[in-house]
Amino acid sequence: MTIKYQDLSIPKRILLGPGPSNISPRISNAMSQNMVGHLDPVFLAIMEEVQEMLRSVFMTENRFTIPISGTGSAGMESALVNTIEKGDPVLVCVNGVFGTRMCDIVERCGGVLKRIDAEWGRPIDAELVRQTLEDFPARIVAVVHAETSTGVLQPLEELSRIVHEHGSLLIVDAVTSLGGTEVKIDDWGIDVCYSGTQKCLSCPPGLAPITFSAGAIEKLRNRKEAVQSWYLDMTMLEKYWGPERVYHHTAPISMIYALRESLRLVLEEGLQKRWKRHRKYHNDLVSGLEKLGLSMLVEEKYRTPMLNSVIIPETADDASVRQQLLNEYNIEIGSGLGPLKGKIWRIGLMGHSCTKENVDLILFALNKLL
Amino acid sequence: MTIKYQDLSIPKRILLGPGPSNISPRISNAMSQNMVGHLDPVFLAIMEEVQEMLRSVFMTENRFTIPISGTGSAGMESALVNTIEKGDPVLVCVNGVFGTRMCDIVERCGGVLKRIDAEWGRPIDAELVRQTLEDFPARIVAVVHAETSTGVLQPLEELSRIVHEHGSLLIVDAVTSLGGTEVKIDDWGIDVCYSGTQKCLSCPPGLAPITFSAGAIEKLRNRKEAVQSWYLDMTMLEKYWGPERVYHHTAPISMIYALRESLRLVLEEGLQKRWKRHRKYHNDLVSGLEKLGLSMLVEEKYRTPMLNSVIIPETADDASVRQQLLNEYNIEIGSGLGPLKGKIWRIGLMGHSCTKENVDLILFALNKLL
Repeated sequence: MTIKYQDLSIPKRILLGPGPSNISPRISNAMSQNMVGHLDPVFLAIMEEVQEMLRSVFMTENRFTIPISGTGSAGMESALVNTIEKGDPVLVCVNGVFGTRMCDIVERCGGVLKRIDAEWGRPIDAELVRQTLEDFPARIVAVVHAETSTGVLQPLEELSRIVHEHGSLLIVDAVTSLGGTEVKIDDWGIDVCYSGTQKCLSCPPGLAPITFSAGAIEKLRNRKEAVQSWYLDMTMLEKYWGPERVYHHTAPISMIYALRESLRLVLEEGLQKRWKRHRKYHNDLVSGLEKLGLSMLVEEKYRTPMLNSVIIPETADDASVRQQLLNEYNIEIGSGLGPLKGKIWRIGLMGHSCTKENVDLILFALNKLL
Repeated sequence: MTIKYQDLSIPKRILLGPGPSNISPRISNAMSQNMVGHLDPVFLAIMEEVQEMLRSVFMTENRFTIPISGTGSAGMESALVNTIEKGDPVLVCVNGVFGTRMCDIVERCGGVLKRIDAEWGRPIDAELVRQTLEDFPARIVAVVHAETSTGVLQPLEELSRIVHEHGSLLIVDAVTSLGGTEVKIDDWGIDVCYSGTQKCLSCPPGLAPITFSAGAIEKLRNRKEAVQSWYLDMTMLEKYWGPERVYHHTAPISMIYALRESLRLVLEEGLQKRWKRHRKYHNDLVSGLEKLGLSMLVEEKYRTPMLNSVIIPETADDASVRQQLLNEYNIEIGSGLGPLKGKIWRIGLMGHSCTKENVDLILFALNKLL
């Protein structure tokens, strides 16, 4: 048995897919620091710092801003199961995999679902949301900010105004956008927003930062039934992360160390500079791709900088190009999903992976392979 | 902002509480290896190895044996939400915090709950389970193997026979026992068993190994309604961990590296030898504590070796002794919970923390402080 399993030896990949992104050595170092108990004063101080830094990164004053002990999808489920009660009308905007997933979860927690669809690769039309809300008094409207399956960046400010004019709460999936482009919770009036650690925060996957506005907390407090998930129940989590420190579950200590370090890195760089970096290398990548004769799936003004969906030319074989990139250049990029399978490649430039060198390398490799 | 948050610097604690336990440097090294994509062939091979090794540690042939991407409590929720359908009669055995938690989750997923209680610090009487099942035809019986809140080790073999004679499925919480004492899934006929990584596996907290028997999978397949949790839905997770590799969520890569290394360490030592080690240092600790005039909460034959509940002598101040242990000796032990708050200390000897030196150190420190 023992000789069967070798020492772990992982190649050094250049991660230019839809996430995870590469991580800084500082994060690896933080993650491998000494283990402590989840109620150790040293760890409680770290929890405070992580909450503070998350508020800075989310640009919010929301007291209730924590990392969920699960991946981005657990963040999605948390956002929905805590706010939705059985019978609540919920409007979900769908233009990719993650909007579709939200619909699935809404139905599992008893929401009355209505969906607005846009073609994959196109944003949701805010005017259509307005018209729909006239007839369908949704308690909650849910939308994906950066659709990782398509590369669309959804404009949120007008949408948020419309949602609040109709007395609804707005839930936003910022799994891919947070730390790579503007996500302004308070300025934009977002009620619940969740993210993942492995995209533009460049931390390993495993945690889902989430934030709840006063309006969302009020809805939570007025629930008639308990939240259907014990693990994701915010009424209990806020007592663990808040001053009461009521034991809920054992926090994933090492991952919290990693998140703390990744948030420090984000704040040291500065949000503005970080957004600018993502925008710059996105522009460089797109112009390089276009010089190679490739075209983008998404119209210029709706492109999300950290995830670039490129139309696969008819002369290229999807899988074999991706395999050659991995085997010959150690570069990972993503394939298309759902209706876009075989039609696009998804090239991520997220966090620590978003560098000039990586833009140059992927352009060099694609030039050789195509 | 940037100068506000210092470099992470964590003291070297001796973790003798209810978990997390100390981790081997080999695990820290594994955890900080290069990041890869969750669909990278290198990572897929690691997923295979982790499943194989988990089967060895659970002593099962169950094909469906994976780590859930959440802590032990997510394992508990997974076990219950996947097997219970609305209206299912469910019998929960309660003699501590974790049995109580199971009741809470059963009600949240629509099970018709009946509970059998034993005094905290006493095991559940199998005969009482038999009598209860005569009148209450439970589809599922749930029990905690090693109650971390009390230190009771629940005998499971007779209980399992009784449960199966009544056509029920048996769910066992082995969060604290797995890797520290016998947990024999196939021999004992356990249908669903979950654990946590941060106890006797001595891996950081954040994952919950789980295994489903053929009987449990049959119940899952015959469900009329979808599992209420998308994130924990085993019908989807088995397609991600199985040969289909259908994308579900991004696996927590670094934590899976850590788990792989911790399972290698368990198998290198050998299960029998590891159980013996836990039993030996438990015995040494208990006789040392008794020499100090202290007595144990739990009757000898029901004591779980990795978690020792000691009655706090009347002359000692609970909190100040724990604080002195932490501040002067860098030793963490646990306090009592619920009705045992202020009445017991919980001294863990789990995995990497279960050593002669640690037994000597805690005895030395308690001798000084009491």
